[in-house]
Amino acid sequence: MPMMTGAQYKESLKDGRLTYIDGDQVTDPPNHPLLKTAVNVAARVYDSFYSADPGAFNPTYIIPKSLEEFRDRQAKLSKGVTDMSLGTTGVSLLALTSAAATLGTLNPAYRDRIYAYVDYCREKDLRCAEVITDSKGHRKKRPNKQSDPDFYVHVVDRNSDGVFITGAKMHISAASIEHELVIMPTKAMYPGEEDYAIACAVPVNAHGVSIIDMTYAPRNEDVRHYPISGKVNCPEGFVIFDNVFVPNERIFLDGETAHAATLAHSLGLWERAAGLGDAGEAADREVGMAALLAEANGVADDPRIKDQLANLVVYATMCRAAGEAAMVNATQTADGNMMPSPLFVSALKYFKSEFRAKLLDIQHDIAGDQLVNAPTVGDFENPDLHAGLAASFAAPGFTPEDRLRLFHYVRDTTADAYGGWAFVTGQLAGGGQHAQRIVTMRQYDMEHAKEIAARAVGIGKYAKKGEENLRPITPV
Amino acid sequence: MPMMTGAQYKESLKDGRLTYIDGDQVTDPPNHPLLKTAVNVAARVYDSFYSADPGAFNPTYIIPKSLEEFRDRQAKLSKGVTDMSLGTTGVSLLALTSAAATLGTLNPAYRDRIYAYVDYCREKDLRCAEVITDSKGHRKKRPNKQSDPDFYVHVVDRNSDGVFITGAKMHISAASIEHELVIMPTKAMYPGEEDYAIACAVPVNAHGVSIIDMTYAPRNEDVRHYPISGKVNCPEGFVIFDNVFVPNERIFLDGETAHAATLAHSLGLWERAAGLGDAGEAADREVGMAALLAEANGVADDPRIKDQLANLVVYATMCRAAGEAAMVNATQTADGNMMPSPLFVSALKYFKSEFRAKLLDIQHDIAGDQLVNAPTVGDFENPDLHAGLAASFAAPGFTPEDRLRLFHYVRDTTADAYGGWAFVTGQLAGGGQHAQRIVTMRQYDMEHAKEIAARAVGIGKYAKKGEENLRPITPV
Amino acid sequence: MPMMTGAQYKESLKDGRLTYIDGDQVTDPPNHPLLKTAVNVAARVYDSFYSADPGAFNPTYIIPKSLEEFRDRQAKLSKGVTDMSLGTTGVSLLALTSAAATLGTLNPAYRDRIYAYVDYCREKDLRCAEVITDSKGHRKKRPNKQSDPDFYVHVVDRNSDGVFITGAKMHISAASIEHELVIMPTKAMYPGEEDYAIACAVPVNAHGVSIIDMTYAPRNEDVRHYPISGKVNCPEGFVIFDNVFVPNERIFLDGETAHAATLAHSLGLWERAAGLGDAGEAADREVGMAALLAEANGVADDPRIKDQLANLVVYATMCRAAGEAAMVNATQTADGNMMPSPLFVSALKYFKSEFRAKLLDIQHDIAGDQLVNAPTVGDFENPDLHAGLAASFAAPGFTPEDRLRLFHYVRDTTADAYGGWAFVTGQLAGGGQHAQRIVTMRQYDMEHAKEIAARAVGIGKYAKKGEENLRPITPV
Amino acid sequence: MPMMTGAQYKESLKDGRLTYIDGDQVTDPPNHPLLKTAVNVAARVYDSFYSADPGAFNPTYIIPKSLEEFRDRQAKLSKGVTDMSLGTTGVSLLALTSAAATLGTLNPAYRDRIYAYVDYCREKDLRCAEVITDSKGHRKKRPNKQSDPDFYVHVVDRNSDGVFITGAKMHISAASIEHELVIMPTKAMYPGEEDYAIACAVPVNAHGVSIIDMTYAPRNEDVRHYPISGKVNCPEGFVIFDNVFVPNERIFLDGETAHAATLAHSLGLWERAAGLGDAGEAADREVGMAALLAEANGVADDPRIKDQLANLVVYATMCRAAGEAAMVNATQTADGNMMPSPLFVSALKYFKSEFRAKLLDIQHDIAGDQLVNAPTVGDFENPDLHAGLAASFAAPGFTPEDRLRLFHYVRDTTADAYGGWAFVTGQLAGGGQHAQRIVTMRQYDMEHAKEIAARAVGIGKYAKKGEENLRPITPV
Repeated sequence: MPMMTGAQYKESLKDGRLTYIDGDQVTDPPNHPLLKTAVNVAARVYDSFYSADPGAFNPTYIIPKSLEEFRDRQAKLSKGVTDMSLGTTGVSLLALTSAAATLGTLNPAYRDRIYAYVDYCREKDLRCAEVITDSKGHRKKRPNKQSDPDFYVHVVDRNSDGVFITGAKMHISAASIEHELVIMPTKAMYPGEEDYAIACAVPVNAHGVSIIDMTYAPRNEDVRHYPISGKVNCPEGFVIFDNVFVPNERIFLDGETAHAATLAHSLGLWERAAGLGDAGEAADREVGMAALLAEANGVADDPRIKDQLANLVVYATMCRAAGEAAMVNATQTADGNMMPSPLFVSALKYFKSEFRAKLLDIQHDIAGDQLVNAPTVGDFENPDLHAGLAASFAAPGFTPEDRLRLFHYVRDTTADAYGGWAFVTGQLAGGGQHAQRIVTMRQYDMEHAKEIAARAVGIGKYAKKGEENLRPITPV
Repeated sequence: MPMMTGAQYKESLKDGRLTYIDGDQVTDPPNHPLLKTAVNVAARVYDSFYSADPGAFNPTYIIPKSLEEFRDRQAKLSKGVTDMSLGTTGVSLLALTSAAATLGTLNPAYRDRIYAYVDYCREKDLRCAEVITDSKGHRKKRPNKQSDPDFYVHVVDRNSDGVFITGAKMHISAASIEHELVIMPTKAMYPGEEDYAIACAVPVNAHGVSIIDMTYAPRNEDVRHYPISGKVNCPEGFVIFDNVFVPNERIFLDGETAHAATLAHSLGLWERAAGLGDAGEAADREVGMAALLAEANGVADDPRIKDQLANLVVYATMCRAAGEAAMVNATQTADGNMMPSPLFVSALKYFKSEFRAKLLDIQHDIAGDQLVNAPTVGDFENPDLHAGLAASFAAPGFTPEDRLRLFHYVRDTTADAYGGWAFVTGQLAGGGQHAQRIVTMRQYDMEHAKEIAARAVGIGKYAKKGEENLRPITPV
Repeated sequence: MPMMTGAQYKESLKDGRLTYIDGDQVTDPPNHPLLKTAVNVAARVYDSFYSADPGAFNPTYIIPKSLEEFRDRQAKLSKGVTDMSLGTTGVSLLALTSAAATLGTLNPAYRDRIYAYVDYCREKDLRCAEVITDSKGHRKKRPNKQSDPDFYVHVVDRNSDGVFITGAKMHISAASIEHELVIMPTKAMYPGEEDYAIACAVPVNAHGVSIIDMTYAPRNEDVRHYPISGKVNCPEGFVIFDNVFVPNERIFLDGETAHAATLAHSLGLWERAAGLGDAGEAADREVGMAALLAEANGVADDPRIKDQLANLVVYATMCRAAGEAAMVNATQTADGNMMPSPLFVSALKYFKSEFRAKLLDIQHDIAGDQLVNAPTVGDFENPDLHAGLAASFAAPGFTPEDRLRLFHYVRDTTADAYGGWAFVTGQLAGGGQHAQRIVTMRQYDMEHAKEIAARAVGIGKYAKKGEENLRPITPV
Repeated sequence: MPMMTGAQYKESLKDGRLTYIDGDQVTDPPNHPLLKTAVNVAARVYDSFYSADPGAFNPTYIIPKSLEEFRDRQAKLSKGVTDMSLGTTGVSLLALTSAAATLGTLNPAYRDRIYAYVDYCREKDLRCAEVITDSKGHRKKRPNKQSDPDFYVHVVDRNSDGVFITGAKMHISAASIEHELVIMPTKAMYPGEEDYAIACAVPVNAHGVSIIDMTYAPRNEDVRHYPISGKVNCPEGFVIFDNVFVPNERIFLDGETAHAATLAHSLGLWERAAGLGDAGEAADREVGMAALLAEANGVADDPRIKDQLANLVVYATMCRAAGEAAMVNATQTADGNMMPSPLFVSALKYFKSEFRAKLLDIQHDIAGDQLVNAPTVGDFENPDLHAGLAASFAAPGFTPEDRLRLFHYVRDTTADAYGGWAFVTGQLAGGGQHAQRIVTMRQYDMEHAKEIAARAVGIGKYAKKGEENLRPITPV
């Protein structure tokens, strides 16, 4: 089957799905004022990768088996336009295939169904949402002890053809503009919680699925004030399952509580790894943004500003290093599927979050009040005002339009609705800092660290080998 | 003359003023979709302080002469509703009166005009904008060396009755919903720049004044999603002067370059001091907000969360201490007008900005993804969705509505358009961190610090007095 | 009885006490190479306060009953020389008297004995050690469940005249150069641990008391290399009790487990409050030190250095504010004894510790490598080397000797044995940062904070009072 | 010529060198109380690498031509014992050879002499000091404008055989226990400063060379209290040149002011790169140390402690990543000599320094007061005290001796004389943080960063290519 064009994709969304936004049910996503931009971006992504070649497929469906294939996949992806719906598709399928070998030890059918499902999505060029976080209710209580059993998605009935699931999942990106929901348990389950140990896939338009969307899409008609979020945005929100049928061939885990967390760990790794290949480049871009702001404001030669830029350069360079290390130290599953090094991936994620506030501080400090006070394009183009504003925004090396756009860009991405969403999501997606600490510790070889420490001090089994610690201890 | 009611205030805005927003000229501010909330809030402020008593006046016009009057002014202000327009009025007039004694030494008329102007505003119950920051053009060039002489407001003509001014000022809050513009030079001027050393006042509707507004007012029709910015917001932006006439009695400085910075310093102090009396209380409120989030999410007993809250408690307590110290160490001008201690005011401002990012980090970490994913009130009230969402948002001690509202509040104030504006403005109003460092250094008694250091080391004039430094040096 | 002179004090130490240092028993503290400086400093303290007037006494024994007396005590103490032995005496007695009213409710004799003991120490001009931290053994086990019952000091026998105590206490400052040991339980005790709920006092030379000393006193014969620690130092270490008899009149708590922590809390407050009256001044001194280093190295005009100094100025000013607030907000016990505000005391302690690393970083960065490479006074005075070194150390405004001494001072206090001790002790005395967090939380009015937050959001009991939250929320 | 044994090395130091320490001239370094440990360690290094094979040589003399040789050199070095004298030898020679190609363009003889000198040192198994930092005098004045011309080492005379140099250099490690002094200009020189543009080598015992040593070697006779600095230490200090003759074949730069900084940059890179191959391992060791402290104190399961360890793990992992990236991105000079990536090297150096204070904070917080209060081995072994102390220091999994030693180790390396030296030197060696910022900026491709930023915003040459910025901007 050939790939879809953007137009075919838009058509494909008219499948009876049930989506709500701002209190209303959406009947035509491609034309809804708060969803149309997201749909258009996804359509452009389809067009950018489209090939009429019958064997062609989007590189997001590649499951790399070697470091070369890993890098090749990234290179191919970077040639087209991308968006959240393409990203979640890749992450969902890589999470499934990374877990396939382990799940196959429980039931060979799980493994087979995963690979068949990847083939299905690739061949039909379908987009998949990651559907994992349960709404949870009281966080300190187990799933089966909640006041309402539906706080966690769980099996409520079954027959020979499949199971029926009910419950609520939250923080689901792009679901209402995608085709498939890839559903996984949110965490480890214990004996007695078999019904909650369910991983599977259903189409977005499956009977009983409702989606409630939130969006940072600007509600201003003149989107020129939002250079990024006015052009690229994406809804996210709740997905509610009410007795939704899942056929057997889409069930990837069913009751094996001991392995309920396998997919969560796998998905977590790939979520944290999103943007990995681009970590250094994305950080460099923000350094460059700060440098452009400094030039536009005429303070690029100020020693204090240079110091701030240098701080960011160090940060960006450390991001690049960790990104490279995660790739170089990638590992393989028993099926031969490549995974970036979980240790470097989670260290990078933690590091980026810790420094993001610093990045914003510096960008804002260099930008100054103009960041939030720069006039709209509408005012700028008003004939009564244009000459005066154009003069005010002139700067050597920048047209007034460019300088204005630079302020709009930084406000949009750091100090407006999208900026707030991006900051919070950047901190919390794939788990907040505390989750990263736990994950990092799980990956770290603490026994080795303690052993080299014990050798340096000359204690424990090194207590008698006096010469061991003669190697001078260089300050870290 | 009696005080104005809210209705009279709204009527007073129909005075022929020239205001632009989003590219259009505004003809009726009280009914413009992006300005009406700001006007309504200002009207409520009028109503909350209104008294028909002929001698009554708003406490913002009090110029305190003692610590008791200082505190009394704050207490009276806290009894009514407040908003940006009331705040800038007090700051503008206190900045003028704090500088009055000094300006009076240049020309006794300046001093007299200032006090007469304060009487005028008080008697007519007028609101005043702080109009100081010039649009500046190339920041490294002097005002009179710019490619366009109008980057800084300056005198372009004069006659026996007054002067004519031209130029652009930026970052002006509330101007289009106030009555008066209090204009000051943005910084120190040098000989040859006499035309730029102009401080004065003109009404907002003076011929030749145009205002270009920006606003973080939500553009969503359903403002329930914005519990704060949907109810309280305020425009800010550019004010352009095109040959505006200023009568002599409203001129407070005219050509005395050596004192051009006097008003900027005075205004800077009062801007930084805004919220001083409330510093501890406002910080406590944010601590309480984090604590409510922790309870609503069921993690209040988590040791890690308790540690984070304790960090915030220390921060809030240090804010309270600095606020108290600024008041206790207040000083008086030669005219007897009270000013809070500039040293403690600027240390507090700097400290708050340094920790604000930490506050947000902690609030976001405790809030979790729900911060940006909590559904709108519209979705919450949709009958198809209500029961499921209400169940998802239930938490011991909180109604689902309250928990939802808590997320909306923190998103609105920290991770949406208003939050972005507030963060940037909080950092940069009254000067960014670098400006605070300069101001703080100017206020600090470094000679004393060096002397006690030299005594501790036993050097300089203490070199021979061996016993001086026997006092043990406790670690700081 | 008259006050002691320094000579009488030295004589008083020959009382049969049992002290160890570096593996040897000390027979003559005033002449032991590692203790003599500490003894000499304590003797100078005696001389500096000495008065032959029969009613005269050291101000450390004043138990203030009002803010004026509190400040008067500090003023009197600052007129003489001070040292660790004088400081611990004041803290020990203030800790007892602050707890006296509460302990008196258990047994009126406890209260009476405390005041009698304060009289006794004051009249005899005795120095008292704070003896509180038990050696603890396994930290997660209760005192009475340890492998060795003597990890905590406890009552092992009793008769009609008193009790016998056994166990080990650690981190005891100055014990071997003082007269009295004031012993308190290290933490709360539970029923069944009555033997561990013992507070009392015994003389240092009581039968069964052994002291093991550590010291940062320089072991170099030429103490000119250590401008501070070569002149002022003090031992600290373990105190071991082996069946030591405590007469009834020196028992302040005996078995009342519910109040075992009362004295620990009281002592903790006074320990954290040590240096409170001096908090701003001590911080200013370190700012001045950094400024002197900048001048001596010719970089005082460097914008980067000025920024660093300004950072320190803010820090010092916040310390001053918190010190003032702790005094202004002081409270009284039921007996009328003044205590500084525990909330501000612990916030200040936490704040200082958090910033101390920053202070050192900046001092070291300004000082440069000379900090650890400046030659000794011996090399400087060597005729072969003097001219060359004097030339190398010349700087405008500083003699070479002064510049050298400045480097030695900062190395001694921040980057040598004393500096390391001071840094660690500054962090950990009175409890580390985690303990401060717990203490601060205990003192903070979180209910008030949550209430003003709830009012701002308009939830809980404020949910229906829509107008409550119209007060605009100023960014913190 | 064969390699030297430790005994031969000791003998080789009896060459008439002129060294001072603590004001006295040293006549016999191997037996001087403050130098003998350093000499003994250097001797052990010789023994550990010794081979009688005539072609054998120490791997520090390897000048790698490929990444494999680079790693091979590190692997070989890690098989033996190392010390400061071996490290400075490698750094000095790598700095020379990295600059050789460039210097060869000025004068082919410079290049040839450098390689001949490396051969000479390798064949004779000589240790070389890095001699670069001039004493500088007034830092804001040029070398030839100083009050004393000898603040910078410079050529004072010359003949056909060579030149004569005079001046003072400071912060020279290990000079008095090495054989050769490798002398380089401290910074860029300008026309007119030709005499200061001198790079060369002379033996330590050259006529006119004097060394003034400082040391953190413990002055306590019982070095068991100093598990590291008691066994491994090294002097450092001033080297004074008084008309010292340099033969032509040891001159590597002579008057070419435009290239005076070439060697400083090269040396700076290699100094910062010291420990590069070991960056991850050294950081892991300190993580392990913190983990051992947590276990020894019974708090390893405390969630707060686990969080702190996880912070350190992230830090160590980022160090490992940057170390790997510096190697993987290594470059080659025109001569084919490998150099680690300067960008990653300086980012790593900066990052390590920024986090070092955090590392110490955490280690100290976990260690607690015992860090500075743990008794000496002497007290521990005193029969009167042993049983009590052994009981106090018992902990599951640790002998009392091991736990004691762990505290001693951490105190010695972080909170005593050596710790202070190591902290300051770690911050400042190879330039402080400001120098790192400058170096990092010089290596960073800011044009690329600005270009990708401009493309994202759609400004400058990307202004018209509207589609360019459709790629969504992922939060960094």
